[in-house]
Amino acid sequence: MNRQKLIEEIKSKNSFLCVGLDTDLEKIPKHFLDFDDPIYEFNKAVIDATKDQCVAYKPNIAFYECHGSKGWDSLKKTMDYIPDNIFTIADAKRGDIGNTSSYYAKTFFHYLNFDSVTVAPYMGEDSVTPFLEFDDKWVILLALTSNKGAMDFQLFEQDGKKLFEEVLTKSQNWGTPSNLMYVVGATRSEMIQEVRELAEDHFFLVPGVGAQGGSLEDVWTYGKNDDIGLLVNSSRGIIYAGEDEDCQIQIHKAAETIQSQMKTLLST
Amino acid sequence: MNRQKLIEEIKSKNSFLCVGLDTDLEKIPKHFLDFDDPIYEFNKAVIDATKDQCVAYKPNIAFYECHGSKGWDSLKKTMDYIPDNIFTIADAKRGDIGNTSSYYAKTFFHYLNFDSVTVAPYMGEDSVTPFLEFDDKWVILLALTSNKGAMDFQLFEQDGKKLFEEVLTKSQNWGTPSNLMYVVGATRSEMIQEVRELAEDHFFLVPGVGAQGGSLEDVWTYGKNDDIGLLVNSSRGIIYAGEDEDCQIQIHKAAETIQSQMKTLLST
Repeated sequence: MNRQKLIEEIKSKNSFLCVGLDTDLEKIPKHFLDFDDPIYEFNKAVIDATKDQCVAYKPNIAFYECHGSKGWDSLKKTMDYIPDNIFTIADAKRGDIGNTSSYYAKTFFHYLNFDSVTVAPYMGEDSVTPFLEFDDKWVILLALTSNKGAMDFQLFEQDGKKLFEEVLTKSQNWGTPSNLMYVVGATRSEMIQEVRELAEDHFFLVPGVGAQGGSLEDVWTYGKNDDIGLLVNSSRGIIYAGEDEDCQIQIHKAAETIQSQMKTLLST
Repeated sequence: MNRQKLIEEIKSKNSFLCVGLDTDLEKIPKHFLDFDDPIYEFNKAVIDATKDQCVAYKPNIAFYECHGSKGWDSLKKTMDYIPDNIFTIADAKRGDIGNTSSYYAKTFFHYLNFDSVTVAPYMGEDSVTPFLEFDDKWVILLALTSNKGAMDFQLFEQDGKKLFEEVLTKSQNWGTPSNLMYVVGATRSEMIQEVRELAEDHFFLVPGVGAQGGSLEDVWTYGKNDDIGLLVNSSRGIIYAGEDEDCQIQIHKAAETIQSQMKTLLST
């Protein structure tokens, strides 16, 4: 999906919500376990209940990989089920030497047909650019993450410039606002403004709203740009909103609650 | 595999060679393509031809993942075929928030039964420690990689300390020389000594010897410790040594050539 189409979807749905499909067999309602492929059946139920409220789905690959080839099949079937007008993010946090990164890119962009993949920056340019060579496909590069460990290295500072700032500025030589986004955690809302100043036109994928404690209003206030420029993710708060056979109703309500907050923010 | 057993294997085989199983359908001898599972059949041939010369195998997960669930099956069968006395490394470069990293850990340590997994440090402590909670399993943390892009962020410097040095010192609070190794690229041989001074007792996984231009003698001179402390990887230089039906002979010779150099170094 290209940038213009993504922006149109956000405006037409009044939503910049991304639903994280971190599907965990220990957490999904028990009745799904009766199916041959519980992960796919649960994802289908989540997609049916949220597809009009969100503009993106983000399966975290760890939750599929841990089931081996069966998990990869569940992921592939899930990707085939997601409507074409919804942006898809492989939350994979990959990154390797150039030749190897190009194989990861083929996996997510060709085999699974994702629109984007999250990439870790530690190995530098040649680990990232192989993902940038596909039309209408995106890298979402880790900049400032939402977890406690983000403090360990991302704030490392050279001549007044922090590592995540170096990642933001250097990587803008590799990609453009049309194929490069950044992960910017909502739990550091005081820093989102700083990130926005360094990457004015790029979209941010913002995890950490909801279960991890970040505020949607703060993300909007400090993070938006002229093209909205935000995809805000919620995983557990939506997909595990219900425990029983009527879970789709709670899942739908949870997504709708966030989407209506987003609609209000978008109308301001 | 625990540290003592790994050291015993190195001493008994006179080898600290790791063979990288970066199995690429476009590069393996053509006759393997006649099999139902060419990747597995090729890996079996490589393992049969090298298992007495090496102490470790390192499949890079990208080369399996790009074939989807079929690739994961090839990887699982390969893991089942590797003899128990050989250390196994999932070159996966994973790392995510704690809950997610624990799923990646289960994937590689339980489902696939690897001894170790390579992990990227960018997200800090809680992205790494979930991998350290398994008996006789290892994290191999990226410190100083062998690619050009290593220069982009790994040499970022705060108060005279480079980022890879911060990774080396900080991570020693998370793991021990019995469950934590480091990736240290051979293409930076002038810096291996510096890394060794910061992590005296830890094993290093050293890529970049051979195809990428690093020197085995330099790695030995600057990188060894009292327990040898080195696993030196070669991938393309060994597994693609032969093009025809007799490729096992060339693969065996390529591994033997490196192993005999290692034997000489070990005897000094």
